[in-house]
Amino acid sequence: MFYHVKDLQYHAKPDRPDPVYAKKLQEVLGGQFGEISVMLQYLFQGWNVRGNGKYKDLLMDIGTEEIAHVEMLATMIARLLDNAPDVELEDAVKDPVVAAVLGGMNPQHVIVSGLGSMPADSVGNRWTADYIIASGNLLADFRANLNAESQGRLQVCRLYEMTNDRGVKDMLSWLIARDTAHQNQWYAAIRELEEKENIVVPSTFPRELEKQQVAYTLFNFSQGDASAEGRWAHGPSMDGCGTFNYVDRPVAFAPAPHLPPAPPYIFDTPAWAMRKSDDLPDPDTK
Amino acid sequence: MFYHVKDLQYHAKPDRPDPVYAKKLQEVLGGQFGEISVMLQYLFQGWNVRGNGKYKDLLMDIGTEEIAHVEMLATMIARLLDNAPDVELEDAVKDPVVAAVLGGMNPQHVIVSGLGSMPADSVGNRWTADYIIASGNLLADFRANLNAESQGRLQVCRLYEMTNDRGVKDMLSWLIARDTAHQNQWYAAIRELEEKENIVVPSTFPRELEKQQVAYTLFNFSQGDASAEGRWAHGPSMDGCGTFNYVDRPVAFAPAPHLPPAPPYIFDTPAWAMRKSDDLPDPDTK
Amino acid sequence: MFYHVKDLQYHAKPDRPDPVYAKKLQEVLGGQFGEISVMLQYLFQGWNVRGNGKYKDLLMDIGTEEIAHVEMLATMIARLLDNAPDVELEDAVKDPVVAAVLGGMNPQHVIVSGLGSMPADSVGNRWTADYIIASGNLLADFRANLNAESQGRLQVCRLYEMTNDRGVKDMLSWLIARDTAHQNQWYAAIRELEEKENIVVPSTFPRELEKQQVAYTLFNFSQGDASAEGRWAHGPSMDGCGTFNYVDRPVAFAPAPHLPPAPPYIFDTPAWAMRKSDDLPDPDTK
Amino acid sequence: MFYHVKDLQYHAKPDRPDPVYAKKLQEVLGGQFGEISVMLQYLFQGWNVRGNGKYKDLLMDIGTEEIAHVEMLATMIARLLDNAPDVELEDAVKDPVVAAVLGGMNPQHVIVSGLGSMPADSVGNRWTADYIIASGNLLADFRANLNAESQGRLQVCRLYEMTNDRGVKDMLSWLIARDTAHQNQWYAAIRELEEKENIVVPSTFPRELEKQQVAYTLFNFSQGDASAEGRWAHGPSMDGCGTFNYVDRPVAFAPAPHLPPAPPYIFDTPAWAMRKSDDLPDPDTK
Amino acid sequence: MFYHVKDLQYHAKPDRPDPVYAKKLQEVLGGQFGEISVMLQYLFQGWNVRGNGKYKDLLMDIGTEEIAHVEMLATMIARLLDNAPDVELEDAVKDPVVAAVLGGMNPQHVIVSGLGSMPADSVGNRWTADYIIASGNLLADFRANLNAESQGRLQVCRLYEMTNDRGVKDMLSWLIARDTAHQNQWYAAIRELEEKENIVVPSTFPRELEKQQVAYTLFNFSQGDASAEGRWAHGPSMDGCGTFNYVDRPVAFAPAPHLPPAPPYIFDTPAWAMRKSDDLPDPDTK
Amino acid sequence: MFYHVKDLQYHAKPDRPDPVYAKKLQEVLGGQFGEISVMLQYLFQGWNVRGNGKYKDLLMDIGTEEIAHVEMLATMIARLLDNAPDVELEDAVKDPVVAAVLGGMNPQHVIVSGLGSMPADSVGNRWTADYIIASGNLLADFRANLNAESQGRLQVCRLYEMTNDRGVKDMLSWLIARDTAHQNQWYAAIRELEEKENIVVPSTFPRELEKQQVAYTLFNFSQGDASAEGRWAHGPSMDGCGTFNYVDRPVAFAPAPHLPPAPPYIFDTPAWAMRKSDDLPDPDTK
Repeated sequence: MFYHVKDLQYHAKPDRPDPVYAKKLQEVLGGQFGEISVMLQYLFQGWNVRGNGKYKDLLMDIGTEEIAHVEMLATMIARLLDNAPDVELEDAVKDPVVAAVLGGMNPQHVIVSGLGSMPADSVGNRWTADYIIASGNLLADFRANLNAESQGRLQVCRLYEMTNDRGVKDMLSWLIARDTAHQNQWYAAIRELEEKENIVVPSTFPRELEKQQVAYTLFNFSQGDASAEGRWAHGPSMDGCGTFNYVDRPVAFAPAPHLPPAPPYIFDTPAWAMRKSDDLPDPDTK
Repeated sequence: MFYHVKDLQYHAKPDRPDPVYAKKLQEVLGGQFGEISVMLQYLFQGWNVRGNGKYKDLLMDIGTEEIAHVEMLATMIARLLDNAPDVELEDAVKDPVVAAVLGGMNPQHVIVSGLGSMPADSVGNRWTADYIIASGNLLADFRANLNAESQGRLQVCRLYEMTNDRGVKDMLSWLIARDTAHQNQWYAAIRELEEKENIVVPSTFPRELEKQQVAYTLFNFSQGDASAEGRWAHGPSMDGCGTFNYVDRPVAFAPAPHLPPAPPYIFDTPAWAMRKSDDLPDPDTK
Repeated sequence: MFYHVKDLQYHAKPDRPDPVYAKKLQEVLGGQFGEISVMLQYLFQGWNVRGNGKYKDLLMDIGTEEIAHVEMLATMIARLLDNAPDVELEDAVKDPVVAAVLGGMNPQHVIVSGLGSMPADSVGNRWTADYIIASGNLLADFRANLNAESQGRLQVCRLYEMTNDRGVKDMLSWLIARDTAHQNQWYAAIRELEEKENIVVPSTFPRELEKQQVAYTLFNFSQGDASAEGRWAHGPSMDGCGTFNYVDRPVAFAPAPHLPPAPPYIFDTPAWAMRKSDDLPDPDTK
Repeated sequence: MFYHVKDLQYHAKPDRPDPVYAKKLQEVLGGQFGEISVMLQYLFQGWNVRGNGKYKDLLMDIGTEEIAHVEMLATMIARLLDNAPDVELEDAVKDPVVAAVLGGMNPQHVIVSGLGSMPADSVGNRWTADYIIASGNLLADFRANLNAESQGRLQVCRLYEMTNDRGVKDMLSWLIARDTAHQNQWYAAIRELEEKENIVVPSTFPRELEKQQVAYTLFNFSQGDASAEGRWAHGPSMDGCGTFNYVDRPVAFAPAPHLPPAPPYIFDTPAWAMRKSDDLPDPDTK
Repeated sequence: MFYHVKDLQYHAKPDRPDPVYAKKLQEVLGGQFGEISVMLQYLFQGWNVRGNGKYKDLLMDIGTEEIAHVEMLATMIARLLDNAPDVELEDAVKDPVVAAVLGGMNPQHVIVSGLGSMPADSVGNRWTADYIIASGNLLADFRANLNAESQGRLQVCRLYEMTNDRGVKDMLSWLIARDTAHQNQWYAAIRELEEKENIVVPSTFPRELEKQQVAYTLFNFSQGDASAEGRWAHGPSMDGCGTFNYVDRPVAFAPAPHLPPAPPYIFDTPAWAMRKSDDLPDPDTK
Repeated sequence: MFYHVKDLQYHAKPDRPDPVYAKKLQEVLGGQFGEISVMLQYLFQGWNVRGNGKYKDLLMDIGTEEIAHVEMLATMIARLLDNAPDVELEDAVKDPVVAAVLGGMNPQHVIVSGLGSMPADSVGNRWTADYIIASGNLLADFRANLNAESQGRLQVCRLYEMTNDRGVKDMLSWLIARDTAHQNQWYAAIRELEEKENIVVPSTFPRELEKQQVAYTLFNFSQGDASAEGRWAHGPSMDGCGTFNYVDRPVAFAPAPHLPPAPPYIFDTPAWAMRKSDDLPDPDTK
């Protein structure tokens, strides 16, 4: 169960409206690695943890904080849209800024949301749960979380460079710091599980049931052998259970497949029509 | 540029058809962490690498191998669908297996693909590029890859337990081993970059521009303090640049926001109508 | 900013596992009118309200409660999936219940979420922000909310009839009651605004700018005049500003459009090729 | 069965082309509350009505009219795109209008549709049936319809203010009037059913089966009690069957849930690895 | 503008309810090549035709007929769902038909649509405008239409074999015949345009601006030369403007690309970190 | 199994960066008829062919070439984005080109992909497998392929006219030529199958099972008889098996449907409430 306080976790007030930047900022609200994604990813992982304890609590702590980040970004975007101009094409003749706004803002910020934020990314794709993951395996999921915080912090840093507004930059510097914290925190949780379970997810599948002869191999499927230089191509494997090896010219292990014809109720091309036939007549003699 | 050889990387032949399992196996072909996802994720990352060398080559090596895995799964699913029964409801009276097949197979495997595999997951959601990521930052993207191989191997292991077919299990044990290899390989690449760049992505954003006072803090937003036990809550941070701290009762740093009314052309609820008004009359006296 | 307490708003404990019902129950968690939809719809409306006061508070009150409902359903579904069977086709020969489970459960509940709930509906479509609306106009949005609570309560009532599990029914009777409350509450808010603004949204668009001659007309575009019996076809209009009228044989007000050819860089069918031509030769004389 | 007449229901002719406005106008053709949505929503509701009579006829009347509105908007957009300029970046140096067009128009209006309208919204999201609803319960569905006409009219009014083109404004004033009519008409239908059935949907679920103690309660989950001022918080409920009440400090009714571990074939984090462990070593002493 | 008559174009009455078949039949209502797709594809093509005449009229004739097919399928599905059973898992113990229904029907047919049809396919994916095409070039679009009628008739034929219900088969035999007619009609329109314009779309792009040396080449990118047997590999090209040729061992025409580093505000992996480095230490000596 | 060579099939190097054009060019990389679509469409068709031989080989040849086209476009887009400006609104005051870039480029090219290409179209919709088709019936699928190459070449020709960059035009002239080749090749394959099977797909459904009386009829559902002029309305049908005929005033063949009420557990509007009732009271007398 949740409670809401009306105060914001941190300031979300720009120096001045900027509807073009409002469109861009949507990316970290409703994009693939926006705050809606991490909020629902962590909450679903938390609700699905089988067993309680510190991992579940960690997920609920950070997941609940992310709702506050959604709130901050929604507030910031609404303020960037304050009094967004009611722009027409003919006004653009006179004023290049108007021209830029006309092209650069998201028309749905006027037509659909009435100068409010939207659960969408910077080009208008609506948020979708395709973005999130909760598998039940904590090591797998913490890796998903470390990835999300890495992609997310990268995007916020890029956005930081795309504005001169001190108010916006102030809020982004908060979010960047929180992503630093969360990267460190998921990293700590990952290291702890890796030290217990070793690094390959899932750790409980019996090793003898996998094809061990290719479990540490790099197949060189792309011309050139630059990849042979890497740590991943020789020496002990990272899980300490094998030795990396490099196959310069990978070969196929199985013959080309041949699928039998489909039964009649499938109405495929009839088998007789797939047999070799005489060529078509030349088009100019038909 | 790519070349195709008709032989398969590994065998993809079930002992016998099983249309219900064919539906389930679609998950690792066309689901969020299926082979189409890793294939296109690695190829796009490879094509977008700015700078050549071993990382780009590694991405192209593994990306190209994944096309072969798509091919193996497509072949396996088509064979699991060989002569799938043309089932009607009234047949189910007599035969519980027929009843199971009737409910358990994907009707599109007959109606749409004609006993072929589909670029879709185990419930029929079509594959979407929402699943993949290529940010240009290699450490971020290798974390996405390690996550994908972790989720993917987990799903294949679960599928391994859901069948007794030796041919299917044989192929899955190949894919599980390859995922072991790829987890180790992305792990090696990550460690190498982390040792050069430290662990927080992106590493080049100036630390003094983020709110350092909250860069290593865990806010306890979920009742109870089980999360305080974790390594993430005290001691040196994982990046070695700070000290984890735990805030038991987090407070808000900014006041509740107040948004000004929208301009008239937005046609919102008029300001006067949002003022406090007398209550509605009781329904039974109206 | 939000806080989480670990206790549930209400009990979410089934008498026994039922993976087939777990699939169905996903509808009111992650479907079009599931709890994720109302949670994010009310929160976004609340964050976007321009002006504070009781309406904004009402939105935040109910929106925050809905997060707790997501939590209850996530918990219930995980429990319905406890120890879901690891079913194979050959087991179905012996046991019709196994056959039913095989066909009736969502395979992603095993493969993807590991016996956890998912942000998806009862057929596996992932939740999407296409489902929600926040326009900034409160009367419009409260109507969206009343609609959501109506569709949602309807779906929960249908689900109530589809199980005999007393634990499930107990939780659903809570959700049904809360939907009763929310329908009454949005209804009260709507009535209040309608009494201030009249019923047509938006109320501030000048009436003289719309084509008043058709502002209260029902055009009989479907054969038969049963619709003429309705209150909507005669008498004073509901907004009290006009009189309903019924046009039995509606006519067109404008001529058929003719679009000029596209410029050459569009590469359309050339104009000369769209002119009338001689017929094709008969196929058997070609 | 349907017949088409080539004349338009109303004029759809702009004074002059305006490809930037064409992009915006797509919102009410192919957006969430565009004409495609109402057309298919009303037709599906009509086809699914169980029982004939005036309600079904009303749905078919208005649904059929909406196809004509799709046609008008498609025509208008094609005309706004007449001879849309073939713009290149270097032309923008000389002419700010060109710059505005370059940024502001939808490139798919050239590349994909060849200066025709598209079944998409103002940012290019394709129309999806996620937008529509037909539940079979008429009161629920008429509320969906009143909502759709409210959101739709709001969007058209906003678009009316975003152009000076008299031809466009003339057509929009037709659509605005029709939305006035349809809001009044669905409102009349709703009132009629509410007077018969009372206001809570569905009306036939036995009241004694819901938790009556919370059926008229507002839980104050958001800090501050502004929401207590509302009509929804005290007095007789709108359905006349209860009394609104306000719970200032809502409490949880059920304990925190504890989920048992998953069975081995799920390959979750092993139970022993979730137990409390010693902390990780400090990073600088490893 | 459109008119609706309440009579159906053809009978849509099954002999008896069959909720499992209702789910399957959704494919040709709301799937990729279902009736909603052809209806909206032809209407949008018709509305976008630049120039009037017989082609536009043909599109509007068939497009309008397809609305009637949507209506027939919606009616048929509703009837197949008449009194669909309210099935619970425990009933499946006793009755394999119940078990089959439990697994095989679409739960949304009860929960969401209340025994009505849905704008969705046979696995529940909602219809999307991603399925349709209207490019403005008639030859291109008629090919899209011929394809749609080919895929559509194929699916209906497969569905015909999946039921013994005479009423269903009777309706499907109508739809199959109409698809025969439409395939013939689009074929005739295509042949007419091909005879005027030749076969390559678009016909107006100047041939000298394309790389003519590869305009009739088949590159043998897949091992083995079975494709060399085909008509497409030798002899005059089908457009009569060139000669097919076959390149057994295709080579690359351009060197491997090298992308320069991104500017600093992109926050990519820094260039120095992408240089070759010493290997990681072995895991067991770290 | 596949191999990659690092050289490109053809040059993909623009004269200079142009981030606005980069956005547009995405259409033919990740749009409905972009290279990802044809690549996966042909590969899936190839993998699903039941029977080997020249058709399967042709599909694999062209499908494998298309991966190289994805690679070329990805490379070209990355180069068009080289050093894309870090643009802010205030810079637009001074420079209309900056204003154009600000509005015209895709913000995700900076924020998400870091100056790399994306698997998305020119407005940012992510690629989806909704775009592709593989039915198992070769004639149907080759028609899908001819359509894809027609729409695709049309889009590339339009893009050719939208730039003056010689490097871009050089690459597009390669792609245009390849589409010419592929249109000719699929055309040849289609003609070969049509000569064997006749033109109606599928060819194996027994003709006596379809309603032959309407198998060659054009119903004139759109007012006016321009469509009667066409070859499709009279004379022998294109399949040579019937005679086209034209029905000027189509009639309905079946009565209006009447659906029985739903069972109680559906909670529809109760039957008694759907009966005719007295009108509502006038609003001003209530």
